[in-house]
Amino acid sequence: MEIIVRELTAQDLSEGFLESLASLAEVRLTPPQALEVLRNRQRAGVRTYVARMQGQVVGTATLLLEQKFIHGGGLVGHIEDVAVRGEYQGRGVGSALVQHATEEARKRGCYKVILDCFEHLVPFYGRLGYRRHNFGLRIDF
Amino acid sequence: MEIIVRELTAQDLSEGFLESLASLAEVRLTPPQALEVLRNRQRAGVRTYVARMQGQVVGTATLLLEQKFIHGGGLVGHIEDVAVRGEYQGRGVGSALVQHATEEARKRGCYKVILDCFEHLVPFYGRLGYRRHNFGLRIDF
Repeated sequence: MEIIVRELTAQDLSEGFLESLASLAEVRLTPPQALEVLRNRQRAGVRTYVARMQGQVVGTATLLLEQKFIHGGGLVGHIEDVAVRGEYQGRGVGSALVQHATEEARKRGCYKVILDCFEHLVPFYGRLGYRRHNFGLRIDF
Repeated sequence: MEIIVRELTAQDLSEGFLESLASLAEVRLTPPQALEVLRNRQRAGVRTYVARMQGQVVGTATLLLEQKFIHGGGLVGHIEDVAVRGEYQGRGVGSALVQHATEEARKRGCYKVILDCFEHLVPFYGRLGYRRHNFGLRIDF
């Protein structure tokens, strides 16, 4: 089954995008609310990708580009929110999304891409070229 | 000695800001080039903070705000590039910067703040309320 990965469009919002994200965390957005979020993210230069199969969205990943002062003003890519709908997991959708986002970061001139993940996903990202580097910490409000 | 933490201004660029960052990684930017990077970052909504002591910049930290589709379109803060000039380390400058950035994230409505660090800095961030959550991975180009 062919997997097509491309940038998120408004139409995707009601064709499985929100259901794909729900495999990651609660979403609580209607498609019109999600459209407003999409516009905000586009203004901030955040890229959202979708994977489509069989006429619907089955997964998503985000690439956030950050221009640093260090490394001569170089760009760093942050991969965020990689999610695949439960029934489509194990078919290469996540790999296709991460490879696409990584390649987009490389084409835009990033000197590295970073991401955070849980222990059990380290081998998955390892197969895509990602290596353990440090620790992810958080504080909740 | 009083530590003042506030947003980075153009003037700071030639008053120790680049030297502070150099404790983290090579910078390779002149103040005019750094000003262009600052403008790009401001357009993308990235906040850069500086700590000043004795009339100069002695440290910096960055807060990047990301609007998610998950959690009802909630905001996540990313703390990046916390750096203190070598001779000012161990005087509470880093803590003041991270506390300020964390408080700014809270005030702007973030539901969490995340950051990546090396093992030996986990206790430092732990004292500021940050807990281990996952692993930081990277790929270099």
